[in-house]
Amino acid sequence: MSRWYIDKGPDSDVVISSRVRLARNFEAYPFPHKSSREGQLKVIQETIDALVKDDAEFRECFRFIPITQLNEADRLELVEKHLISKELAESKIESGLILSNDEQISIMINEEDHLRIQCLASGMQLEKAFEICNYIDNQLSHKINFAFSDALGYLTSCPTNIGTAIRASLMLHLPALTMTGYIRSILESCGKLGLAVRGLYGENTEAHGNMYQLSNQVTLGKSEQDIVMSIKTIAYQIMEQERLLRAEILKRNGVKLEDKIMRSYGILKHARSISSDEALQRLSDVRLGIHSHLITDLDETDINQMMLQIQPGSLQKFYGRQLKNEEKDFERANYIRNHIQSK
Amino acid sequence: MSRWYIDKGPDSDVVISSRVRLARNFEAYPFPHKSSREGQLKVIQETIDALVKDDAEFRECFRFIPITQLNEADRLELVEKHLISKELAESKIESGLILSNDEQISIMINEEDHLRIQCLASGMQLEKAFEICNYIDNQLSHKINFAFSDALGYLTSCPTNIGTAIRASLMLHLPALTMTGYIRSILESCGKLGLAVRGLYGENTEAHGNMYQLSNQVTLGKSEQDIVMSIKTIAYQIMEQERLLRAEILKRNGVKLEDKIMRSYGILKHARSISSDEALQRLSDVRLGIHSHLITDLDETDINQMMLQIQPGSLQKFYGRQLKNEEKDFERANYIRNHIQSK
Repeated sequence: MSRWYIDKGPDSDVVISSRVRLARNFEAYPFPHKSSREGQLKVIQETIDALVKDDAEFRECFRFIPITQLNEADRLELVEKHLISKELAESKIESGLILSNDEQISIMINEEDHLRIQCLASGMQLEKAFEICNYIDNQLSHKINFAFSDALGYLTSCPTNIGTAIRASLMLHLPALTMTGYIRSILESCGKLGLAVRGLYGENTEAHGNMYQLSNQVTLGKSEQDIVMSIKTIAYQIMEQERLLRAEILKRNGVKLEDKIMRSYGILKHARSISSDEALQRLSDVRLGIHSHLITDLDETDINQMMLQIQPGSLQKFYGRQLKNEEKDFERANYIRNHIQSK
Repeated sequence: MSRWYIDKGPDSDVVISSRVRLARNFEAYPFPHKSSREGQLKVIQETIDALVKDDAEFRECFRFIPITQLNEADRLELVEKHLISKELAESKIESGLILSNDEQISIMINEEDHLRIQCLASGMQLEKAFEICNYIDNQLSHKINFAFSDALGYLTSCPTNIGTAIRASLMLHLPALTMTGYIRSILESCGKLGLAVRGLYGENTEAHGNMYQLSNQVTLGKSEQDIVMSIKTIAYQIMEQERLLRAEILKRNGVKLEDKIMRSYGILKHARSISSDEALQRLSDVRLGIHSHLITDLDETDINQMMLQIQPGSLQKFYGRQLKNEEKDFERANYIRNHIQSK
């Protein structure tokens, strides 16, 4: 089955993936961390019922995953696929995940809010992701009374999410902007426009592999559509700048960039041990090499697959056993080498 | 035609090449830099005559190269092949080179001494090199009166060469000793034993690519045979240590060493620009990889060929034109990539 996190989507030379999430809370229960265990369990059960009890098709499409009962590698893998947050993976309270079979729709239960309805898609598909979220939200709203204030909108555990309670985000690959340092002024402008730019795994994570997560900070005073549109508009501007810069660097300083890309390719093809950070950086170089037509025996679905598979949880799942740190570096190099050489 | 500087010789996992040179001066003329132009020219002519005039076979085997009339790339190439010294390449006085067709025997005329009779061989072949030098010396001695004192032996321009006027040297590849730092105590011991250890291109050059030139410093008070034997004996000890260390590193820290070697291989196979220093270092890694059976599609003659061909003079000769610095790095990477990929 093809997966959004491997697939090639629209504008995927720059936009790796799109994500929309809506925060929702039951009116009937306190926020998860203020709730009793009984209340937490009720939220889980009532959400499952609301989604699938009366809908045979949905029952086929979704499954419930009791997060706290998973082993560490399974939980890590879900984080690495961006299906749950680190916080939910480490949760000590009753919590869970409803996941669609294609892993495009994930509903985190009892994270910071009762529900985090999330839809993910490859490339630039923010509107589609929003529509799907909306659809799920509507389904649930028929059965659940969500905490809502006419004055404030949806009520959320953290006040920064109040109102539309929407977060729309794009994962961007910006090697040229990073290389030239122009990324700094982009980050500044985004801040002024009320957008946040973060690393690969959300807040407080660094921008590994030249990947940046662009998302709205404001959730109040604007419609969901406006929020989605404003991110999309700014992303298109960043995309154009990144594309122009790539072309310019290749034109002006072709050999140097080509050398950097091809060295990374050579290292990935031959290394016997590689850290996660180095691998992400080198895969980022190769991704640029693919979009610059320097590397033709790989395509970006290979990069997406390797970027996911080299993460600690996914790597351990792949090899079916717990790996020590140096073993991870060794097996990561093996995985990448085998993947590239099988092409 | 196979060449000593490409060929694989005995013990060539550690000993790249052997070299013996004898310094000789005409009794009839002042040392080259004290001599008139007329005297310099006479030395050249009389040497050529002494070697080939009455010997049809030798006439076929040797050719005279007027160094000062060569262009820079040709002169550089001769230095890179170790056939002449940097000093002779830059000489402003009348000077030249008599070279055997197989480039194993080279006689520099009017370098520091009137004659520097030199024989080179691949691997550990110091005695053979000495025998050949001796043979040439005898041939010349029939026709030329060399400056010789019963008390001091052969007289030379620099007093450090007086006596036997022999220099025997081995080019050693010592990556394991270098990696582990044990090379420092080797260098110290060699110093105490009256041997000098230098970089790839003789005095005052650094040890690029983990290659070290081991040679005698003392030329007085010992026979030529004793000098050759003492270098050979010490080289065998160093060789054993290097071999043991390689095996130990591979056993103890196999993945790390394998990773280093294979990364260098990957970079050489894919880089689009590479400096001479980096290329030598990476070729040194690959050479170790060949002798450790990690790399099987190349053999050491490939390494020898690339190590020579990436030097500035040889590179420009290969591409048939003068190259600017960044062009050199580019064409060097091209040359290496093509050579490896043609295997």
